[in-house]
Amino acid sequence: MELYNLKDRARFQERGPYNDLIHDMYTFRMIVFNFEPGQELPVHHHPADSEVALLVLEGEGFFTGGKEDLPARPGSLLICKVEEPHGIRANTRMRVLVTIAPPI
Amino acid sequence: MELYNLKDRARFQERGPYNDLIHDMYTFRMIVFNFEPGQELPVHHHPADSEVALLVLEGEGFFTGGKEDLPARPGSLLICKVEEPHGIRANTRMRVLVTIAPPI
Repeated sequence: MELYNLKDRARFQERGPYNDLIHDMYTFRMIVFNFEPGQELPVHHHPADSEVALLVLEGEGFFTGGKEDLPARPGSLLICKVEEPHGIRANTRMRVLVTIAPPI
Repeated sequence: MELYNLKDRARFQERGPYNDLIHDMYTFRMIVFNFEPGQELPVHHHPADSEVALLVLEGEGFFTGGKEDLPARPGSLLICKVEEPHGIRANTRMRVLVTIAPPI
């Protein structure tokens, strides 16, 4: 049983998103991506039979990779297969909890 | 690719927590538990080799089931094995995103 306080872990860097690994087990992986304005997770996909959930914790931007960009605000949750193209673009400082299961 | 807005889905009921199933696949299950003040998810456990993550979206309360109750506020994330006793008690209206992987 482990307790994390995600609000205390905000950290950003100029050279790209700061990826904060929270949990990495055979069950699932959780990472918080911390974006400065304008930073992004480029659209990508993986050839694996897993799914990914992207939950916006703070800030605003867009989910990318679909037919059109989708607005991403606190409480926005995107779920897709990891083999589907997906990405994130931050308009403000933005923090996104990424869950991947099973981990790839 | 599915987009959910968790802020728009808040719903509560007097007879017990309102459990809002978001996603249910072989990869993971996500449910938002919506508590009125004083409502709880009783301490329980399951004999399965999965893990569960409890992320507080809104409101305040406690994570129960451990040696001592742990404070639960927005951004608090508890991760444990489903075979470990775990529960939630709400002090205010409270919304908690529960992720279980693999689903049981």
